[in-house]
Amino acid sequence: MLKIVVLGSGAGGGVPQWNCNCKVCQLARAGTGEVIPRTQSSIAVSVDGEHWTVFNCSPDIRQQILDTSALWPADDQYRHTPIQSVVLTNADVDHLCGLLILREKQAFSVFATKTVLSVLDENPLFNVLDSQFVSRSALHDHEVTAVGEGLFVEPFLVPGKVALFNEERMLEQENSLQIGEETEHTIGLRIFSAEGAESFFYVPGCAEMTGPLAERLKGAPLVLFDGTVWFDSEMVSGKLGAKTGQRMGHMSMNGEHGSIAAFAPLEVERKVFIHINNSNRVLMEHSDERNAANAAGWEIAYDGMAIEL
Amino acid sequence: MLKIVVLGSGAGGGVPQWNCNCKVCQLARAGTGEVIPRTQSSIAVSVDGEHWTVFNCSPDIRQQILDTSALWPADDQYRHTPIQSVVLTNADVDHLCGLLILREKQAFSVFATKTVLSVLDENPLFNVLDSQFVSRSALHDHEVTAVGEGLFVEPFLVPGKVALFNEERMLEQENSLQIGEETEHTIGLRIFSAEGAESFFYVPGCAEMTGPLAERLKGAPLVLFDGTVWFDSEMVSGKLGAKTGQRMGHMSMNGEHGSIAAFAPLEVERKVFIHINNSNRVLMEHSDERNAANAAGWEIAYDGMAIEL
Repeated sequence: MLKIVVLGSGAGGGVPQWNCNCKVCQLARAGTGEVIPRTQSSIAVSVDGEHWTVFNCSPDIRQQILDTSALWPADDQYRHTPIQSVVLTNADVDHLCGLLILREKQAFSVFATKTVLSVLDENPLFNVLDSQFVSRSALHDHEVTAVGEGLFVEPFLVPGKVALFNEERMLEQENSLQIGEETEHTIGLRIFSAEGAESFFYVPGCAEMTGPLAERLKGAPLVLFDGTVWFDSEMVSGKLGAKTGQRMGHMSMNGEHGSIAAFAPLEVERKVFIHINNSNRVLMEHSDERNAANAAGWEIAYDGMAIEL
Repeated sequence: MLKIVVLGSGAGGGVPQWNCNCKVCQLARAGTGEVIPRTQSSIAVSVDGEHWTVFNCSPDIRQQILDTSALWPADDQYRHTPIQSVVLTNADVDHLCGLLILREKQAFSVFATKTVLSVLDENPLFNVLDSQFVSRSALHDHEVTAVGEGLFVEPFLVPGKVALFNEERMLEQENSLQIGEETEHTIGLRIFSAEGAESFFYVPGCAEMTGPLAERLKGAPLVLFDGTVWFDSEMVSGKLGAKTGQRMGHMSMNGEHGSIAAFAPLEVERKVFIHINNSNRVLMEHSDERNAANAAGWEIAYDGMAIEL
């Protein structure tokens, strides 16, 4: 059995975002329940309930651990964590920066593609994770890897983009941001306890539903999928920023090329949107967008959401 | 008038710390009130209550802003922050890492010594702070600098040490960690609204009370001072780590060379310990250590503590 806990269901910035005053953030601050506050993108997975792997490590990881008693240290040790490993799907700050909080000479393993691991190497700040205690291991496209006690992942490249803070350098070196291309900058994961046992897919960032990706997800018992924006230009029309969802490396939920339409023929048993941006009105409990997503068979993740598979 | 809000009163890791099971952390998790949970080290200061400067920016800054309505965006703007600037006193992760959360193309200024600013330069991750919006300005020893709307600081070097993640490089380059030396790695600040008006001192990290520092602090109306450890070997004897307070660049509260003794003759009107580590039993509301600190005229900072001067 797989135990899955959503530690953070928001995208970068969380809900509300520190400097945002959009309708969704206003409602989140008001505390009426119409928008539930959400921390930044992360899930935890365990086979036995005692050993946990964290997928993406957000700056909110300290608060997320405090809110999740399964991740507290064992009673009988001075220093301890049930967290065995951290797996990263890209190098965005909201997925990476929490590693800096997991310092304090605690042993665990970090797994990511070589491209993402190189970001750790290029930023001396990550030396707070003493290499005597924290190992770094590369994930390779399609190569099944044991990441925790009885827990395996199969990584696969998905259309994405380079992390924001490396965009300028990427432009200089490659003359392109490779937005929407399948590179080691962004991966999805099949997560399972044993070959033959049920598995689920975790794809918190994806710029496009390709034919091979659709084929892969078809018939899955559970998919946690990129729910960043409802429509591609919502940041622009909401006067919140200049970038479209596509420009940020995320396909929208709605529309002809959106994820709701793309999943419609895939017969996925349980579909959950995660990594949801504060601009997305699907976060409002009674919005038209929420109703439309639910009507199409989608659930909207929230912090603390627990799923067993 | 100066309005001061303690955003985070804990040291690195906060209280409880994610992987710590010491008595203090246990009590903080238990939620009985005997130990109040504390986020990581930061204060906010304002002259007019509308423009704020954040001193040290912890990984908990998102949560700290959400808990402090004075720091919420104005009602009439889509994106906004009352935070004008961030001032750093060293480059420790618990003081620096929150800058990564203050991304999102929001204009503000960062002030720190050249040594600390070089850490930002050396870590490409900080490019998430777009230089079009976020300026970086150097603080110099003894040079009064305007850091916000009617707000000034006078920085001064204090005995400290290089940030943890740069220790190895420092050993290679300098053959010394310069622990306890006065360098640009660690500063204290006099903070004031105008020359002649009352000022207070913010010294969240300090390895030793030197003669000149004592002279400087003498008779001050308010000092917020390094309260990391109660006694120098408490991490070691508590089986929480191998380092003494001195090795971490912090003088202890107790003992012959401790801060309580050092402040006794200084006639400071209001003395507040901040940056308090989870190992420090002064955090227990009814401990002998708390009683002794209180009896010596010290207050123990807590998150949300508001002071007007």
